[in-house]
Amino acid sequence: MRASRRDFFGRVSGWLGAVALGGVGAHAAADTTKMQGAPVRAYGVRAAYEKAARWLVPSRYPTSTASFTPLAALHGTVTPSALHFERHHAGVPDIDPVAHRLLVHGLVDRPLAFTVEELGRFPVTQRQYFIECSGNTNTEWAGPRGADVQQTHGLMSCSEWCGVRLAEVLAECGVQPAAAWIVFEGADGAAMTRSLPLAKCLDDVLLAYAQNGEALRPEQGYPLRLIVPGWEGSTHVKWLRRAKVTAEPYYTREETAKYTDLMPDGRARSFSFVMEAKSVITTPSPGSTLVRGEHEIRGLAWSGRGRITRVEVSADGGASWQTAQLHGPVMPLCHTRFTLPWRWDGGPAVLASRATDETGYVQPTREALTAVRGVRSFYHYNAIQQWRVTASGTLENV
Amino acid sequence: MRASRRDFFGRVSGWLGAVALGGVGAHAAADTTKMQGAPVRAYGVRAAYEKAARWLVPSRYPTSTASFTPLAALHGTVTPSALHFERHHAGVPDIDPVAHRLLVHGLVDRPLAFTVEELGRFPVTQRQYFIECSGNTNTEWAGPRGADVQQTHGLMSCSEWCGVRLAEVLAECGVQPAAAWIVFEGADGAAMTRSLPLAKCLDDVLLAYAQNGEALRPEQGYPLRLIVPGWEGSTHVKWLRRAKVTAEPYYTREETAKYTDLMPDGRARSFSFVMEAKSVITTPSPGSTLVRGEHEIRGLAWSGRGRITRVEVSADGGASWQTAQLHGPVMPLCHTRFTLPWRWDGGPAVLASRATDETGYVQPTREALTAVRGVRSFYHYNAIQQWRVTASGTLENV
Repeated sequence: MRASRRDFFGRVSGWLGAVALGGVGAHAAADTTKMQGAPVRAYGVRAAYEKAARWLVPSRYPTSTASFTPLAALHGTVTPSALHFERHHAGVPDIDPVAHRLLVHGLVDRPLAFTVEELGRFPVTQRQYFIECSGNTNTEWAGPRGADVQQTHGLMSCSEWCGVRLAEVLAECGVQPAAAWIVFEGADGAAMTRSLPLAKCLDDVLLAYAQNGEALRPEQGYPLRLIVPGWEGSTHVKWLRRAKVTAEPYYTREETAKYTDLMPDGRARSFSFVMEAKSVITTPSPGSTLVRGEHEIRGLAWSGRGRITRVEVSADGGASWQTAQLHGPVMPLCHTRFTLPWRWDGGPAVLASRATDETGYVQPTREALTAVRGVRSFYHYNAIQQWRVTASGTLENV
Repeated sequence: MRASRRDFFGRVSGWLGAVALGGVGAHAAADTTKMQGAPVRAYGVRAAYEKAARWLVPSRYPTSTASFTPLAALHGTVTPSALHFERHHAGVPDIDPVAHRLLVHGLVDRPLAFTVEELGRFPVTQRQYFIECSGNTNTEWAGPRGADVQQTHGLMSCSEWCGVRLAEVLAECGVQPAAAWIVFEGADGAAMTRSLPLAKCLDDVLLAYAQNGEALRPEQGYPLRLIVPGWEGSTHVKWLRRAKVTAEPYYTREETAKYTDLMPDGRARSFSFVMEAKSVITTPSPGSTLVRGEHEIRGLAWSGRGRITRVEVSADGGASWQTAQLHGPVMPLCHTRFTLPWRWDGGPAVLASRATDETGYVQPTREALTAVRGVRSFYHYNAIQQWRVTASGTLENV
């Protein structure tokens, strides 16, 4: 086939026209090559056709206090900031970044207050980290209840964070020998307060001012938040205004009445910080309808203890497993995307994924998890999630 | 120091009050802990205090046809999609993704038209890649002219892209033995058209439908664009509607009148696809004002030939160099962030950075570049960029 320029353009107009008439129904295929398009913009917006949205959980309060990331609609490992899950205890405060201060005091030689601009002059650290609310997947303790992956696993997102290591700022203040914990406080209406061990604070905790390249979003703690890599979301105190270095934890509301784990013997496990290895299949998942033939199973895996080393996928409810492909770079304390080709022949299938992390820890079944933890817990549910494929190709939580 | 809960809260209110009175001037520090904040949102927006914007380059046309990323205002390596640079030749078309088709035809056994949804069922590939317009930094050929790093280097951004390898789609169509090139066409008013060698198309070219976790933004080619890793931006055809497999390139307007390099002997170098190694200091840069003392020099480096292996920074206009820290993961064909501590004592200083990539290529000086290329070129300027620090601490392009 030899083609001239005339042939090139002539032939294709015919092809595209035929396709448009035959296949798009109510969706008119305007010939956009005959029009001047929209101009440049100082700050972009998404396409009007895109509807992916956070799910605003129904609430007994005037407004919802949590929103869930639409995991099934997303790609890759970076969560768009506009769709990062939210959990706030008294709404999103409006903070002027010039007026904002972080006060570091308590068992330090030099109590100091820092502006965000001053913190930005310290050496910067950038890292991609997941944040998972410890309440994520709490619907599943007593059996399958979440309607879809957004409801079961949507209190979980992953971003590139930039900030200064807390250790650098503490060094300026001079931590005293008696120090063992730090109590952090947010500037929101709840004055969200959590205690963290000094060792973690000196290791990898960040005072973050940027998310996915730009300043933090308001609902993510603008202008300053804590990032506590791999630990439960509520410790990543947002709208951070205060860090008090102490000898002991403060046993605040958020580490006594909340964010503790009721065990079968009636005692409560407290300061259960680490988010254990977990995974979930996002495609296909409830809301999808399968046709018979080739598919690619896709999902996310993560661990608060380091890198994901393996994800296995089952299509028969855990009777047999196949190792999925991990998409690099596989980074510690970060979402890892996994995929596995799979053919659906129309028969019964129960899809499930199982993550292993670099410590050797393997994500448990619900039965194994509840044998230890009972079913009266609320936080730290990380069992294997199953989606059953029905005869009509829809999926349901089982 | 022993602190009770009463002491904890009482002491801090005093501290923060004193700071606010002493330091913030016109910026009133409202006590946001006494207010209910804003509710959750289905799709978030940035803080009203944040003003970073793309620079809309003045144009002889009714509207600008390019916008530049505000590199000095950004952090990390991911460019927020809302601030990714734009270059379009006839504006941004409004494309209904359900009606859109990609036609693959020419030297193939089975010409096929694909919907975006169909392409989404192929195995997904996710990778972080930079895109740089080959016209980036064209202000500098005859000497320093750009006012700041946004004007000199802002036609450059980096995102996590998801899509299907073009090779997978071509395999469905059956490429014929005579095939050697593919001509790609956009659905914009310019019907933007570029020819690419088949070997590159079979290697790492992506049909991308997602950027930074969600669907492509309209100005980035919604609903489908080409990603041609490491090659000049104009080859990453946006609003992609057609791929014609051919024996030869088409020598379209965009590879003859434009996107060729006029050499000193009067001949034009064509199909100069690869973006060579380059780097620039983003902080400090014109627009900053330095105070004497400790600073962290920060910048970005990238190469269309692979990984960045080294970035050196000079504070004396290239007389001496120090090796900067690279912030990982250092990925090929991707932005790499570098930093170096530096103390400004108030004296003369000319800041510069020099990148080396894994092929051993070292970013040239302007003199070395123009000795080969002359000064009548427009595209593919990658020389070392210098910022002079004035006695007052401001910076200027020299």
